[in-house]
Amino acid sequence: MSERDARMALCCAVEPGNLELTRLVAQHGAESVIAALQAPDSKSRWSRRARSVDLVAVQRATKVNRLRFVVPGDDDWPDCLGDLAEVEPVQEMGGVPFGLWLKGEPNLATTCASSVAIVGSRAATAYGQSVATDLAAGLGLHRVSTVSGGAYGIDAAAHSGALATDAPTAAVMAGGLDSPYPPGNASLLQRVAGQGLLVSELPPGEHPTRARFLARNRLIAALSPVTVIVEAAWRSGARNTVSWAGALHRVVAAVPGPVHSATSVTPHRLIREAEAVLCTGPDDVLELLAPLGRAPVPRPDQRRRLDELSPDELAVYEALPARGRRDAGEVSLRAGVSLPGCLALLDRLAEQGLVAQVEGGWRLVRAEVGGRS
Amino acid sequence: MSERDARMALCCAVEPGNLELTRLVAQHGAESVIAALQAPDSKSRWSRRARSVDLVAVQRATKVNRLRFVVPGDDDWPDCLGDLAEVEPVQEMGGVPFGLWLKGEPNLATTCASSVAIVGSRAATAYGQSVATDLAAGLGLHRVSTVSGGAYGIDAAAHSGALATDAPTAAVMAGGLDSPYPPGNASLLQRVAGQGLLVSELPPGEHPTRARFLARNRLIAALSPVTVIVEAAWRSGARNTVSWAGALHRVVAAVPGPVHSATSVTPHRLIREAEAVLCTGPDDVLELLAPLGRAPVPRPDQRRRLDELSPDELAVYEALPARGRRDAGEVSLRAGVSLPGCLALLDRLAEQGLVAQVEGGWRLVRAEVGGRS
Repeated sequence: MSERDARMALCCAVEPGNLELTRLVAQHGAESVIAALQAPDSKSRWSRRARSVDLVAVQRATKVNRLRFVVPGDDDWPDCLGDLAEVEPVQEMGGVPFGLWLKGEPNLATTCASSVAIVGSRAATAYGQSVATDLAAGLGLHRVSTVSGGAYGIDAAAHSGALATDAPTAAVMAGGLDSPYPPGNASLLQRVAGQGLLVSELPPGEHPTRARFLARNRLIAALSPVTVIVEAAWRSGARNTVSWAGALHRVVAAVPGPVHSATSVTPHRLIREAEAVLCTGPDDVLELLAPLGRAPVPRPDQRRRLDELSPDELAVYEALPARGRRDAGEVSLRAGVSLPGCLALLDRLAEQGLVAQVEGGWRLVRAEVGGRS
Repeated sequence: MSERDARMALCCAVEPGNLELTRLVAQHGAESVIAALQAPDSKSRWSRRARSVDLVAVQRATKVNRLRFVVPGDDDWPDCLGDLAEVEPVQEMGGVPFGLWLKGEPNLATTCASSVAIVGSRAATAYGQSVATDLAAGLGLHRVSTVSGGAYGIDAAAHSGALATDAPTAAVMAGGLDSPYPPGNASLLQRVAGQGLLVSELPPGEHPTRARFLARNRLIAALSPVTVIVEAAWRSGARNTVSWAGALHRVVAAVPGPVHSATSVTPHRLIREAEAVLCTGPDDVLELLAPLGRAPVPRPDQRRRLDELSPDELAVYEALPARGRRDAGEVSLRAGVSLPGCLALLDRLAEQGLVAQVEGGWRLVRAEVGGRS
């Protein structure tokens, strides 16, 4: 059996997120692990399932449903999933998936490289849904993909927002990709597969279970460098995804909402306890995504800084021309400040980055706006 | 002239928050400073005003309006105002007030010792006003006073909430206490004076100006250990109060709101930039107020911890009786876990503070709720 076939067989034989077997595969390779499980004398709890795997049938179902099965090393395989090998287990789950079924054309690795996971409550409010849609759409316009779970509420809103742009969006499912789950999102998931990707570590024919949702959440958190939680009540599956993101040292952001809203309890708690950064929209998330040293231009806070100037500083600042330079003597005249005083004030403004000394005088420094393509 | 009269005269002669003169008074005492200002050869910009102070008239107006004038060292004087002597100036203002006019019975020092400043936009939304009212009322029920500025919007909502309880509330004004400002809040301010206090460093007859509002904000921030900003657009006077609170090393908290709301821009920005702690209601503020080592009991997060248990841990946890103890042998039987495994699991649960070993077995540890009087 090839390594690829062995991995497919393991996906069929073992529940996702199994710590022991993913570790064994990392150590000994998939072929020897599936062989050991299928050996007649094996007493593993997975052996019965391993021996009954019908690989030909699974391959046929993969083909019939127009799926691809990808494994580590494939062009499509996101290397970031490797972080799952070393992460502290969450609820005794973890591990790199043996393989993934994909539906859709985009390359998964490329899609995830610049992506944000947007997660939240199924029982979202209209507010939360509108924020999730705006967020995904705003990110999509900057060619940042949205990863989510295809569920009702926040997930669906996020995928919809992403679909409104050209960016691919990925829905990571907790069951086989042959049947959409939840059924009510069938047409949405079809559109996701058309423009983006459906992703699952479970073979066609398998249905979601509670444990599979938990295992699926680790993939959502692992695939994106940033996870944003939009709305979630205190007891919510989205908190599990956030736990994974934290364990994986991913950036966690949370969207605030009205303090009376039960679905903002988890975002507020996470922000308050410094487990998440407050996020109000796409710009905040883009800032979190920007690699060090390539951070987007700071927001136009110049007005704020002007508000904090003393009357004399402001007079000197306003005595400089909108364009070009002016010498300190003329600035002092226009500002009604003595020349030594004026020079001291200009120095102070220069320290704050508001003015700059140039040949033959001083000029205003304008806050640069935009600059992100 | 007595020190007290000299301080009253300085309040009349000098604009509040004057860095130079508050420093001179700290060094040389009020009597010599007012004498120097009133000296015929003084060239200070404040001398003309100092020479024209009619102290008898001011004392009469103080009495007629049923005000008290208090100075440092008085029983009513809050020592926390002393922090203003050393604070980094904000917009070139600062300094301990020379004295304060008070209207109302409560002791100002006692009132402020356990108080929270609630500030925000005059142009508040219904959401912000309801949060401010609930916050002040919730704090009042715990005998925590509310300090604010008596303005429309958040200030008025906060005072109203406080008035619904027995706790005194203090409104710090930017003009003399003889005429209510803004006039539309006259009856509210009358109720504040009835149950709490009106406070001002300006003598009767003086009107608020932009500079006086800024100087007044330093008093609001200085009087309370915690300042909560409820709603404020990006350019808002409440941000000035928050700057003061930060400069004074007071705790700053901010209330989140819908991300689309312009009046939540400042709270969100402050939280995001870690200049404020997120606050959703009175409990959050009480937590911030609690002195170190006397922090309120943690919230009932036990359910959260149970959610994170493995199936075996949960089985063992649930095999313990609701009341009383059970020996490990019986726990292992009920949980369907081997005795050595059960003991290991009990140890792990004990480390998490969920169970405890007692004589003759193990018992559940319940999260304590409440405990704050």
